[in-house]
Amino acid sequence: MTDKRDNVTDIMKALGEKARLASRLLATAQTVQKNLALKEAAKSLRSQSPSILEANTRDIAKGEADGMSKAFLDRLTLNEARIEAIAAGLEAIAALPDPVGKIMSRWERPNGLQIERVRTPLGVIGVIYESRPNVTADAGALCLKAGNAVILRGGSDSYHSSRAIHACLTVGLEAAGLPVDAIQIVPTTDRAAVGELLTGLSGNVDVLVPRGGKSLVARVQSEARVPVFSHLEGICHVYIDKSADPAKAEAISVNAKMRRTGICGAAETLLIDRSVAETLGKQVLEALSKSGCTIRGTDDIQALIASAEKATEEDWSTEYLDTIISAKLVDGVGDAIAHIAKYGSNHTESIIAEDIEAAETFLNKVDSAIVMHNASTQFADGGEFGMGAEIGIATGRMHARGPVGLEQLTSFKYRVHGTGQIRP
Amino acid sequence: MTDKRDNVTDIMKALGEKARLASRLLATAQTVQKNLALKEAAKSLRSQSPSILEANTRDIAKGEADGMSKAFLDRLTLNEARIEAIAAGLEAIAALPDPVGKIMSRWERPNGLQIERVRTPLGVIGVIYESRPNVTADAGALCLKAGNAVILRGGSDSYHSSRAIHACLTVGLEAAGLPVDAIQIVPTTDRAAVGELLTGLSGNVDVLVPRGGKSLVARVQSEARVPVFSHLEGICHVYIDKSADPAKAEAISVNAKMRRTGICGAAETLLIDRSVAETLGKQVLEALSKSGCTIRGTDDIQALIASAEKATEEDWSTEYLDTIISAKLVDGVGDAIAHIAKYGSNHTESIIAEDIEAAETFLNKVDSAIVMHNASTQFADGGEFGMGAEIGIATGRMHARGPVGLEQLTSFKYRVHGTGQIRP
Repeated sequence: MTDKRDNVTDIMKALGEKARLASRLLATAQTVQKNLALKEAAKSLRSQSPSILEANTRDIAKGEADGMSKAFLDRLTLNEARIEAIAAGLEAIAALPDPVGKIMSRWERPNGLQIERVRTPLGVIGVIYESRPNVTADAGALCLKAGNAVILRGGSDSYHSSRAIHACLTVGLEAAGLPVDAIQIVPTTDRAAVGELLTGLSGNVDVLVPRGGKSLVARVQSEARVPVFSHLEGICHVYIDKSADPAKAEAISVNAKMRRTGICGAAETLLIDRSVAETLGKQVLEALSKSGCTIRGTDDIQALIASAEKATEEDWSTEYLDTIISAKLVDGVGDAIAHIAKYGSNHTESIIAEDIEAAETFLNKVDSAIVMHNASTQFADGGEFGMGAEIGIATGRMHARGPVGLEQLTSFKYRVHGTGQIRP
Repeated sequence: MTDKRDNVTDIMKALGEKARLASRLLATAQTVQKNLALKEAAKSLRSQSPSILEANTRDIAKGEADGMSKAFLDRLTLNEARIEAIAAGLEAIAALPDPVGKIMSRWERPNGLQIERVRTPLGVIGVIYESRPNVTADAGALCLKAGNAVILRGGSDSYHSSRAIHACLTVGLEAAGLPVDAIQIVPTTDRAAVGELLTGLSGNVDVLVPRGGKSLVARVQSEARVPVFSHLEGICHVYIDKSADPAKAEAISVNAKMRRTGICGAAETLLIDRSVAETLGKQVLEALSKSGCTIRGTDDIQALIASAEKATEEDWSTEYLDTIISAKLVDGVGDAIAHIAKYGSNHTESIIAEDIEAAETFLNKVDSAIVMHNASTQFADGGEFGMGAEIGIATGRMHARGPVGLEQLTSFKYRVHGTGQIRP
């Protein structure tokens, strides 16, 4: 056991050192080089799809033998269409503007010094994920485009699939003359490798991104010794103000909850202004119920809609990720804000209101990464924000917040241009 | 002992909880309120200067009794002029633009959603400092202006002075109707309080800023369980390219090293392009020597200037903070960059060159928070950058890098304005 552990420590240490070296070369890689690597990787994915599917078959067989759920096996399964989508995703990232080198701001000092704030890569990013093999390509490509080296640690369940996809990324890096260590995958299923990544590999990992279920994210958040971009859960709220437009209130509530119930931007709690409970509230609750949603509410809510179940205290802090919504009457926007402060997860909340003042109060006072007015919480997504792609959504306040796209995977430095200035 | 430790834990826990509550109120405090608090605190400092000086006398007496050094006692000592400077500093921060609520960027999506990225406070900041009592006011004021609550933990040596200054800040907060818990000072000299702060007080501290010597910063960096804005040291380099203008090379080298030797932006190593060693190199070394600087160099350097001492390997990674500079010949800009990558501290480096291509290569490839061309490294300062004031300089890549001013003490959120959009 000791030998095995030491072996994993050595493997991970070597990965960290190689990633740091690669990151130094990547920091000044040309945009065309990075794009070429992504486009060649896409080509390789398409041409290697038989071997990727074969690798995937091995993972699926193991998953079935282990008695994994149908949902789990679906996340794991690749097919021609999914491989094509992964390849197209790489090309889409190649088409995005390169954030590195972009001048974020520039100013001149009275002494003539010209100061520029310029985007630079972050360094080395560790990505820890579970069963979805496509994360290998998506995360690897985003990190590369932002000039970062990445260490990928996929779930042991998708081990062969992820390795096969990773091999295509390596082909792309080689074709572009970039270091193959720019995108490394942990070459062992030993769970001790995750523990090593969480230590930051002696300063060779700058940030960790967990992609997966709540238990994975919770472990990374509590044990990581380096910064983490993550959200533990998305307990998203829709608040229907008394000034809400009934058609918007109904359409947005149903969309926010029911369009896709398994994503982090799905609404989990509906807050209704008490003064419009009998009218707007009843209408929205009935629409939700008719769409197939189970409502768990307070007595007030049960009085409005007979099918509602009784909510318990626990419901207000539950992320259902299912066709269930908790519902409650509140006394105006201030009460809604107080409820969200108490039970929310700082992810995404929306107010439905025609009263601009109520909307402004909500947008200013709700402390979430994304606050919306008259829009569905399901828009909480890097692609919908126009960022092109995202590696996840962050609910922390440090560095990245909200969708984590290319820009959030960068740092910056100051470039100062002088003409011989000395400080008096 | 156990009782005492538990007591400190309880005290710190309560501080954290009160800071978090105050931060929620501060997040939406009006600019005029925050400015009023700062201006009233400045007034209070001036009117209370006798009691502040009296408190300071007690700290100095203890320092003298403990046999503290002259430099230490100087940092600790307050007088009328220093109190006036602290008060004026508060007024200067009041005069700075409020970063909170500033729209950083704004764009519209094809579906009509208007997305804004808006500055918000970070939350709760912990500041751990040593003997300079003025940090109490400077750090407290910067955190407040950026809408953050702050927990100040000054050194036990400046305990009474810091408490007296803190009392004036409290007067300001009260006058402005802001929560007094916005700026709290740790009410004990027990060193266990620092350990508690480093844990992040159960999520009630968002970032730590250490202000002091290397051992303090090293401890905070290694033990903190929350993000830290800091630099361990400033091993700043000046590289003299073969294309350098002789007058600029001489003036900048002497200024970068000798203007003030004790600041983190002071140059510690001079790198000279070998091809101009006999001309430019010799001239600059002689000028440095004449200005009173001891040179520690390689054999090459000793051959150029007789007074040079022999440098050891350790010199290249030593922050002298004194009238000493290490010096070495390098083979052009690439070699200079390699030396800096190996021995630097990612703080501030400057190239002296008329060759724009060499300068661009240096600015792009040197991985430091601040890279300069034809300017003195002593400009590495928030005030000199036009940020108004800084709480320190960060050499990490996460969130803040370089001078940490008001903007770097903020986070952001996304405000999305819709007209009823639902996600297809």
